[in-house]
Amino acid sequence: MVKIVNLEEIKNILQMINPIEIIEEGFIAYSKGKVTVPPVGEMVFDDPPGECHIKYGFIKDDDYFVIKVATGFYENHKINLPAFDGLMLLFSQKTGQLLSVLLDNGHLTNIRTASAGAIAAKYMAPKNVRRIGVFGAGTHGRLQPIYLQKVLNCKDIITWGINQEELEVYKKDMKELGFNVQTTQEPEDITSTCNLIVTCTPSKEPLIFVDQIKEGTHITALGSDTPEKQEIDSAILKKADRLIVDSVEQCLLRGESFKALQNKMIKKEKMIELGDMIINKDLQRQTDDEITVVDLTGVAVQDIQISKAIWEAP
Amino acid sequence: MVKIVNLEEIKNILQMINPIEIIEEGFIAYSKGKVTVPPVGEMVFDDPPGECHIKYGFIKDDDYFVIKVATGFYENHKINLPAFDGLMLLFSQKTGQLLSVLLDNGHLTNIRTASAGAIAAKYMAPKNVRRIGVFGAGTHGRLQPIYLQKVLNCKDIITWGINQEELEVYKKDMKELGFNVQTTQEPEDITSTCNLIVTCTPSKEPLIFVDQIKEGTHITALGSDTPEKQEIDSAILKKADRLIVDSVEQCLLRGESFKALQNKMIKKEKMIELGDMIINKDLQRQTDDEITVVDLTGVAVQDIQISKAIWEAP
Repeated sequence: MVKIVNLEEIKNILQMINPIEIIEEGFIAYSKGKVTVPPVGEMVFDDPPGECHIKYGFIKDDDYFVIKVATGFYENHKINLPAFDGLMLLFSQKTGQLLSVLLDNGHLTNIRTASAGAIAAKYMAPKNVRRIGVFGAGTHGRLQPIYLQKVLNCKDIITWGINQEELEVYKKDMKELGFNVQTTQEPEDITSTCNLIVTCTPSKEPLIFVDQIKEGTHITALGSDTPEKQEIDSAILKKADRLIVDSVEQCLLRGESFKALQNKMIKKEKMIELGDMIINKDLQRQTDDEITVVDLTGVAVQDIQISKAIWEAP
Repeated sequence: MVKIVNLEEIKNILQMINPIEIIEEGFIAYSKGKVTVPPVGEMVFDDPPGECHIKYGFIKDDDYFVIKVATGFYENHKINLPAFDGLMLLFSQKTGQLLSVLLDNGHLTNIRTASAGAIAAKYMAPKNVRRIGVFGAGTHGRLQPIYLQKVLNCKDIITWGINQEELEVYKKDMKELGFNVQTTQEPEDITSTCNLIVTCTPSKEPLIFVDQIKEGTHITALGSDTPEKQEIDSAILKKADRLIVDSVEQCLLRGESFKALQNKMIKKEKMIELGDMIINKDLQRQTDDEITVVDLTGVAVQDIQISKAIWEAP
């Protein structure tokens, strides 16, 4: 029997599990070359404009394989529908049987991304995080402070956004979750007071620059996942003592590292893969003075692992 | 709300609808160049050996798009599981929303193939079908006589198979469905008495040869869908007065036509596409003396249309 899991059930299961460990295992398997990820399937529609991506893959010798479908129809707001939809399909790698249909409407993609941000901080953030600086008051600007609590203790956050109204709602919501929240429209307010910064915007221009970054700062760049998007000045990647990327192969083509390579600010050799860093202490932050950057673009192995985590939950 | 439809419900709906019309529409749209079918996604597994195919596409300006997942794990019989599994996903082309998950275990693929066989006979079989000859006593050897009843009246069938035991079970089952059934292990018994022949085997060697084929015979070759498989001698395609293929593009690379091209028995120009034939009477059988062949390899638009038929059923 195929197990159909709806969004409400998925959210309930997520409260009972910690996906971080299983996603860490995924990154390790990926960096060891154990993950097969075929090219993304794509359909593009004109009227109304929309797209559908099919991402799929498996860890060799694992029990499962996963197919994720994600759609984006950007004019849906006109008819009061969310822009995004999608689901994940979990199959047995031993029999080909469909095991589970996860009707997550894209939520699990958000959670696996939030988990990657937490993993980045777990190994690369300074020992004592004074205050968390967040760029973006959207889904990930909300999820990051929450998921970071799984790896560190810091309830003080300051969040940057463009829209004052959105920031007010954000502040109210996050306070209800127990955070001490400030909001700002000045990036400097964040760089001058935070030693852990997470960027979660769809920006195509840098929001922060190298002169603003203090010693001992860690930055997780979560927003840029295309060749066009950029949130942090490429000179920051040049200055950084360590640059970690979720996938070297993918970050050569998209994200902050791609921009820095294009701007000749870094060489490919500077990029260390997240899975390699997790298993090698020498690649992790060594002192509280280092400036470190983790560049996340999203890897299919995260989808594989989060689906497994839901399926295997008791 | 996503509508989940299980196999039993799908079978019930199939009894109430006639998928032939909507699949005909699909073939017409395909031949008019209105169907977008991106490359098939594929995963291959070693231990145990298995594969997964992801087929997807849409008719331009239609309301839907469809993603079909099919798995084949050929050692599943060792653990008493079927070799095949899969599902179809129906989305709105206007909003990207997932509309329906059709948990068909591959059944709809069988039905859309059986429907194509019926469409082939509808336009190409001689006016009076004396007796239906079937090669293969498997799923399609059973479905073809049933689906052919939707387009012609002939309850007399003779079915060829290798395995006598399988043929006995077949005979019993088909008699219960109201057919007059003979079985044979001699292909000549079929070619000498039938003017409608359907081949439904996974053979890699021709089962029937040009000298055996009488005037006025129609053959639908259903089994070969790869570059390796072949059920009918290529000289039959050469002799045929008309050769119809479900997809010219695809039949240049697989199926009976591919074999005949490779054997230099036909030229590409002889191949007429099914959708073109449906809308042009001049391309259909003209007299009861003609020898005609329809070569079916399976086209994604059939999956799109059968999913729609299930979704739109009252």
